[in-house]
Amino acid sequence: MPKVSVKGETMPASPIRKLVPFAEAAKKLGRKIYHLNIGQPDIETPESLLNAVKNADIKVLEYSHSAGIESYRKKLAGYYGGFNINIDYNDIIITTGGSEAIEIAMMTCFNPGDEIIIPEPFYANYNGFSCAADVKVVPVKSYIETGFALPPIAEFEKHITPKTKGIMICNPGNPTGYLYSREELESLKQLVLKYDLFLLSDEVYREFCYDGKEYVSVMHLEGLENNVVLLDSISKRYSACGARIGALISKNKEIMAAAMKFAQARLSPPTFGQIGAEAALETPKSYFDKVQKEYVERRDFIVEALNKMEGVFCPKPSGAFYCIARLPIDNADKFCQWLLESFEHNGETVMLAPATGFYSTPGAGINEVRLAYVLNKESLKNAMICLDEALKVYSGRVI
Amino acid sequence: MPKVSVKGETMPASPIRKLVPFAEAAKKLGRKIYHLNIGQPDIETPESLLNAVKNADIKVLEYSHSAGIESYRKKLAGYYGGFNINIDYNDIIITTGGSEAIEIAMMTCFNPGDEIIIPEPFYANYNGFSCAADVKVVPVKSYIETGFALPPIAEFEKHITPKTKGIMICNPGNPTGYLYSREELESLKQLVLKYDLFLLSDEVYREFCYDGKEYVSVMHLEGLENNVVLLDSISKRYSACGARIGALISKNKEIMAAAMKFAQARLSPPTFGQIGAEAALETPKSYFDKVQKEYVERRDFIVEALNKMEGVFCPKPSGAFYCIARLPIDNADKFCQWLLESFEHNGETVMLAPATGFYSTPGAGINEVRLAYVLNKESLKNAMICLDEALKVYSGRVI
Repeated sequence: MPKVSVKGETMPASPIRKLVPFAEAAKKLGRKIYHLNIGQPDIETPESLLNAVKNADIKVLEYSHSAGIESYRKKLAGYYGGFNINIDYNDIIITTGGSEAIEIAMMTCFNPGDEIIIPEPFYANYNGFSCAADVKVVPVKSYIETGFALPPIAEFEKHITPKTKGIMICNPGNPTGYLYSREELESLKQLVLKYDLFLLSDEVYREFCYDGKEYVSVMHLEGLENNVVLLDSISKRYSACGARIGALISKNKEIMAAAMKFAQARLSPPTFGQIGAEAALETPKSYFDKVQKEYVERRDFIVEALNKMEGVFCPKPSGAFYCIARLPIDNADKFCQWLLESFEHNGETVMLAPATGFYSTPGAGINEVRLAYVLNKESLKNAMICLDEALKVYSGRVI
Repeated sequence: MPKVSVKGETMPASPIRKLVPFAEAAKKLGRKIYHLNIGQPDIETPESLLNAVKNADIKVLEYSHSAGIESYRKKLAGYYGGFNINIDYNDIIITTGGSEAIEIAMMTCFNPGDEIIIPEPFYANYNGFSCAADVKVVPVKSYIETGFALPPIAEFEKHITPKTKGIMICNPGNPTGYLYSREELESLKQLVLKYDLFLLSDEVYREFCYDGKEYVSVMHLEGLENNVVLLDSISKRYSACGARIGALISKNKEIMAAAMKFAQARLSPPTFGQIGAEAALETPKSYFDKVQKEYVERRDFIVEALNKMEGVFCPKPSGAFYCIARLPIDNADKFCQWLLESFEHNGETVMLAPATGFYSTPGAGINEVRLAYVLNKESLKNAMICLDEALKVYSGRVI
């Protein structure tokens, strides 16, 4: 029997999915679970997107252009213009979700063995795509005490080796909810230029910036045009995760030419999703205002509830729809599994993501969890009651 | 300015797309082009597929399960049962097109530097996915004189080295249209077992087998359960290339566990496409009968027309909707470009795929072209008139 590849063996399993069997077992016992473990919003997808797909007059469901439907790319360039990101539609390749944008960017920018520095905690699937591209992730630690602000540039520099070829950030951040300031990004720019690195930036949460704080894109950084690759997705923007539509964007022509060859090999991104995504560009501002108001209320509620619990600390994030909380527990993996296996409060429990899965440094995040505030306030309220009660009786409680 | 990766540089450009700029220029001149260069059928997508998407009652367009919607996988297992392929739904991972199935299979089965033997000519994008996975393609030549039958096993054995870890076939074949016999596949089985290899089989054209000839799947080969990975797609079956729905299938549990980690990293295949694909399983036999009859008529016409042209030889394929013809020309790349750039007959011309792009051996296929008979008979007739006229006046004609 031939053996699975080394990559197939070492490929990290999704840390969130590890708990799924326990959740399924709990459900079989009739337990109600509040899912704060995954960024699948309950927000309704805009009707413009869904109706465009319903009303599409298709006789033959053809391949689209490998870079995506041209009319969509042209309108999408206009969308970015609205954020003061000035790009041409030829600077855009439509991808199958943000996932494929990350994958193609890794393959295009890095050689096997190259190193990419990523502030941790970071989106766990970056590990998977790095593994696929044989790229080594070098974490730079950010801290819950500072709300996961960008680590000092000196910390980045400590990790730079001759193999370092890029830096990757997520802004606003998953899993931290942290929104990088212009100053932080300007300091990153200096570093990127000094060492001639690629700067990959995952900005899929740009619509979710709160408290009037400014969204600054890496595309706003002047003089960095050849270094920057922007990774995007409509999944969160329009609550359309299943459309599988993302984008890889760069003004670096060599990167785009190489990325295009990967795009051609897989023929085209999904046609239905693109039709929906193009129509969704007409989504009125009122939709986003309403969604943003909803998330701010949820955030305010959940962060306050968490910080009221004895021994819990949760910095208030300014973006995305996640927060990381430090809990008075011995081990987040154990605790999250216990919540599903052995705990219930009035027949209910809560599913959280252990933060360990978002750190690359062994042992980091051992007493932290990520909460996605993607449920309505009533559910969040019940989820917080569950968590509070759970912390009171958990045998691994640490003060 | 940081440099593109080696992979980004060496990644082969799609041989078919190379001619696209010339086609666009010809169109601008008002020339009508018959596109026989790409496997984009003109056959209408079944209404069951399109209507299911139209009528889907979606409020939130969510991620599906990473392995695909469970109800779809369960019904799909039944579909394979209809071809005497007995699998469980857990043996299936739904992928984003056949492309992703190939990509994940390569990453899961092979280590960088491993070798995979593929009979040439073969589907050009296998090169792209091999490049992405750092796998070396070792071609074994098949010949137009035998209609591109499986090369003798002794020829395969000549190419086996300690690095050989797999064999890949396409059956029925793109670009050859060749349908492997049970005897050919049984001989391949002995080889695969002898050297403990993976056997990857792309069988996306199984609905397109003609003249009453038997479709034999690698999944029919007893004792090969742990070696076989089946790669599939609905693109051709339902003329639904834009749905981007494929499948990776294996009874090897270790391969499936590893492939699942790649599937989880990219979250899920497209939801709309899966909804359509599930409904398309209800497509009546009459649809396929009609489509098959149409393709047989087209094949019979085009093969006869080609063989009637002086100096042209085209074996009659038994499957898929492609044929390869040997033309009395000096250079197929030059000829196909010339057809777009400098030729017209009554304001019309024809776009073909130079076969060189389907061979890995330098110089092979230099006087061969692939024709996809994906247009209606009237168009095919005009296209053949164009080709006949073109061959008469082409300055690089060789007798």
